[in-house]
Parts: sequence; structure tokens; C-alpha cells
Amino acid sequence: MRIAADAMGGDHGCQVVVDGLLQALEQLSHIENILVVGDKSQLGQALGQAGKSDSRIEIIHAPEILTMDDKPVEGLRRKKNCSLAVAMDLVKRGDADAIISPSNTGGIVAAASIKLRTLPGVDRPGIAAVCPRNDGNFILLDAGASVDGKPRHLMHYAIMGDIYAREVLGVSRPRVGLLSVGTEANKGDELTQEAFNLCRELDLDFIGNVEGHDLFHNGLDVVVCNGFVGNVVLKSCESLATSMMDWLKAELTAGPVRKLGATLAKDAFRALKNRVDPDNIGGAPLLGVNGTVTICHGSAGARAIRNAVCNTVEAVDHNINELIVDAVAKANDNLATTATEPVAAEA
Amino acid sequence: MRIAADAMGGDHGCQVVVDGLLQALEQLSHIENILVVGDKSQLGQALGQAGKSDSRIEIIHAPEILTMDDKPVEGLRRKKNCSLAVAMDLVKRGDADAIISPSNTGGIVAAASIKLRTLPGVDRPGIAAVCPRNDGNFILLDAGASVDGKPRHLMHYAIMGDIYAREVLGVSRPRVGLLSVGTEANKGDELTQEAFNLCRELDLDFIGNVEGHDLFHNGLDVVVCNGFVGNVVLKSCESLATSMMDWLKAELTAGPVRKLGATLAKDAFRALKNRVDPDNIGGAPLLGVNGTVTICHGSAGARAIRNAVCNTVEAVDHNINELIVDAVAKANDNLATTATEPVAAEA
Repeated sequence: MRIAADAMGGDHGCQVVVDGLLQALEQLSHIENILVVGDKSQLGQALGQAGKSDSRIEIIHAPEILTMDDKPVEGLRRKKNCSLAVAMDLVKRGDADAIISPSNTGGIVAAASIKLRTLPGVDRPGIAAVCPRNDGNFILLDAGASVDGKPRHLMHYAIMGDIYAREVLGVSRPRVGLLSVGTEANKGDELTQEAFNLCRELDLDFIGNVEGHDLFHNGLDVVVCNGFVGNVVLKSCESLATSMMDWLKAELTAGPVRKLGATLAKDAFRALKNRVDPDNIGGAPLLGVNGTVTICHGSAGARAIRNAVCNTVEAVDHNINELIVDAVAKANDNLATTATEPVAAEA
Repeated sequence: MRIAADAMGGDHGCQVVVDGLLQALEQLSHIENILVVGDKSQLGQALGQAGKSDSRIEIIHAPEILTMDDKPVEGLRRKKNCSLAVAMDLVKRGDADAIISPSNTGGIVAAASIKLRTLPGVDRPGIAAVCPRNDGNFILLDAGASVDGKPRHLMHYAIMGDIYAREVLGVSRPRVGLLSVGTEANKGDELTQEAFNLCRELDLDFIGNVEGHDLFHNGLDVVVCNGFVGNVVLKSCESLATSMMDWLKAELTAGPVRKLGATLAKDAFRALKNRVDPDNIGGAPLLGVNGTVTICHGSAGARAIRNAVCNTVEAVDHNINELIVDAVAKANDNLATTATEPVAAEA
């Protein structure tokens, strides 16, 4: 298996990417090559400073960088040789089986959509953010690949999330919920009400509508929503988790007795921080494109990059795209036979 | 000033409501009467057990209760004499200046919309949830009064939130943001893109699009979104805050040294818990209806009820509905003169 890694677009430069890739290679013997894409001289230097080496790392030069401030489509048009585009082309040409990238999320979605296209039967890709809950993780998708989704797109997200949870996260029968404003079948906006009707016909454990209250402690494995809602929820929760850790720190340092207590219990705080640390997961798969694409946080550290590579390898190993194509085809066929409106009208 | 209090629809029965009302009366000498609505004998008993008394409390009998399981509109039709409906009628008839209720949120919105109607110029009411941030609070609205909002509704939420933040929360010039998936003007779904164009014409400090990342530590005072998004974000964040406190507790009790540390620093945890405790605020105003309506959490305790009464009194004292009617009329007029499409098409 060959993985392309865009090394340049993240907030912390290429050193953390190179370090993370080397950590992943130590763990995963069946990776043939990692094609690390970016500025040749910077990458050479980063490899020199990494403190370890691996002959499976190969540098592919790309002279440009799509920055966080670049507009996705326009930026890709202007910077045809940015590391993201060059890495995506490796997947497109079959020179790599998958790509990981900590670049501009919009840029990754645009590059994948333009260069790889969506899988047969899938209209729109979805970002599957993996989030912590009481006793494991759940997937929230779409976490922002597109906005203004249609019911059919949400149905596809349910199918793709179910497959990813089974194959990559190892959940035997994922519990899939549709994010809404009440648990009854008739609750929600027009989009979710129609999506509810499509999802309940699927061959998966669809438990119906779920609310924001259910996310972090209700044993859900897959939570489906449109990209606008998913993006806002994900970022709001990240913001709250960060703020709560800050508030806790401020409280724990307000006075000598509290400080002493905090010192004694410091492992507890470290464990809590670790629990909500996005670097634990490392990346969110972009599901529904014709290739295996993992979007890393812009602020991903080496550990995040390593974890992203591990999940990416799982996705390739389990052929999840083949499973997605089969399941989506079946659902689309059912839809076509039962729909009162032509399916195309919803696409 | 006379306040109607629906005492029956909350999760904890009428005792906590009665206790909270008595606490509020101790603080607020200019409340003439609180008309506490519910089962006469239960209320009499609760008043007897309250440990204090106040002659300004008056019992209004209502034999029925709208439960959390009742469907709002259908429930109100079936239970015409439920405590919520009777309390709302007191406001409708002018026998009370405001109402607080811990009943079924959908029921409160429906009863207020049906009995009080919206303010002139306002198409839809919005729930203004007051949430904690680094150094104060922000308002998130609409937190779920309606779904499938239109751009014009979001504009009204911005106006109403600005007025509430100024008059009740005491913010001199509230920073108002529109919740979206990126900060650039062109980011968002169709709804927010159109709402952006309307909001930037308003006579308030509209800072443009904000993201989920900005909510808890970016000095925002008012965050505007449609009711579906607001409800999901609010409940997701409540769920995460609860889970994080649970995770922290579990970590702090895992081993004797951590336990000792936790005991020494217990005031810090209490302060953090207090910071994210919805009872601090007590209630969310339903803005845009022709009356002053405060929605309490179903699980509101006595302190929440007391705080809800205090905020309700502020809202009445500051005549916020008059301010809303004036500001909305001005904005609607501007819209009518600048709109290329007839305004009515968006209502």
C-alpha cells in the first residue's frame, strides 16, 4: 500500500508531518511507500531532523502551498503545483492508494471532488468527524463537506457512516441516528423529515431521530446531519471543550490549596484533556469520493498524523469504497422503485 | 408588576417553583403579585412546606398539566385548563405582565404564539438561550422556537437579541454575529448568505459571520441562527458539558492520590460546574411575542426559577417589546425600500 502525504498545508509546517509519518511506518509494516509531497529542501531538512529514518519515505517535490487563507477552488486553480494538488494527483493516477492532508479543509474537499470525483451513485462526499463519547467514539457526518444538503445526501451519509464505523472503528452493528430537534419521527425541518423516511428503509440499525443531548453519552455510533449543521456542531463542541479546560485551569490555580490539589490530581486532568484531544483520532475521512482521503486538523501534531495514517490504512485494507458503492446502489435502486417523485429531482 | 408562574409542568413538580418564586420575591420589592398557577391543593401544600411566606403570592387554580410527552398544539387543544394555558391567559388578558414556565418548551412556544401572537412586524418568535463564555454570557437565538427559518427571521433575531443583550444583560454595544461555516461574507448556506446581506444593513454592531469555534471565547454577545441549528448546538453543548464533568469526576476518583487532590481542589470543580450550570441563568426569553415570556429548563431548580423571575422583571422594566417593535419596523421599512423582491415573499 502506498500513501500520499501532503506535508505542507498544516499550521505547524512539514516537520510534524514527517515525524508523524515516521511514527506510522514504525507501527505499520505493510505500508510499501509513503510519498511525502512538498518543498524538496524543506522536506529533506525535516527528514534529517526527525531523529529516525525509513527507506519507505519518498519525497515528491511540489513548489507551492495552498494556505488556510486561500479560497479552495480559486486557490487550486491558481496553484496547480501546490502540495495538496500534487498529492491528490498521485491518488488520481493510481500512484498512491490514499492521501492524508492537514491543508485547508475546503481545499481538500474541492481537490478530491474535482480530481477523484465521487463514487458511483454518491452525489456528494461527506466528512466523517470522529468524536469522543462516554465509552468510545461516534462519527458525525457530514461535518462540513457541503452545505444545503438534500434528503438523498443524508441517506448516503448514513450508509457511508455505517460502513466506516463497522470496518474502520470495529463496531459490529453501528447505531445510526439522524440529528434533529426531537426524537419523534415527525420532528425536524423539511430536510430531516424527508431524510428520516429514506433512512428507515436502509438495511442498517437506524434508531431514528436523535437530539444534541444524545451525542456524548447515548451509545450512538453514527450521527447524520447536513454539512452546515455538522460543521457548526463540531466546531462549537471543540470550542466548548477548549474553554472548559481553560476554565478548569483558571479555577485550579486560584489559591494555594487548589494548586496543591491540582498537582496531586494532575494525571486526572491530563487524562481528561487527552480524551477531548482531536489528535487522538488524527483525521476525518472524506467519504464518498473515488479514493481514500483523510483530512487532518490544520493544527495536527505528529501524533495526529500518525493516527490519521493508521485509520487511512484501515479504510484501504477494508475496501470501504467497494462496500459503499454496493450499499449505495442498493439504496438508490430501492428509492427509484418506491419514490413518488423521480429520484433525479433530489440529486 | 405582576408575574404569572406556571408551577406544574416542570420535571420536579411545584415545590421547586414555589421555593424559587419566594426567593425572587425576597429580592425584588417592586413585584406586586406573583400569580402561581396550578393544582390548588398541591400549591397550598408547597407553600406550607416552603419555610417562608409572602402575601404577594396568589394561587390560581388550574386542574390540568401539559406534560413533557404531550404534543404542543394537540396537548393545548385537549387540556384547555392546563397550568400553562391558564397562566398564558393571565398575560393575554392583561392580568399579568409576564409569564415564566418550566413546561414543555414546544408547548410554551405554541401557547404564546396562539394566545399572545407575535409583535407587529415580527413573523416568528425566537428563543434566546443565554450561554456562558469566558468573561460573561452570550445569547444564542433562535434556540428552537421554529425550524426552516427565512433570512428575514434571522434579521429579526439579530435585532431582538441585540435589544435583549443591551437592556437585560447590560451590554452597552452588543457584538452580533451570524452563525455559519466560515467567517467570510460568502460562506454559509443559502439562508445565512441572504441573512448576512440583511443583517449588515442593521443599525447594530454586526460583526458578520462567526463559526462554532468563536462561541465560547470570542467576546460575542449575540449569535444568530435558525431554530434547528440553535437547538442542536445548544443541546450538543449541554451534553458535552455534562459529559466532561462526568469524565472529570471519573478520572478524579481513579486512585487515592487523585482523590486526595480532588478533595483539596473541590472548590475549583464546584466553580467550574457552577459556570456551566443552566440554573445560573434560569430561563430563556421567548422574544418576539406580544408579552414577556420566559421559558425555564424542564429540570429547573428553585435557584433557576428565582433567576428566571429576575431576568423577566428586567425585561418588563426595560420595555423591551416596545424597543423591538420600533427597531423591527425600521428594519422592515428599509427592507421594503431596498428589496428587489417583494418583502412578503420572504415572510
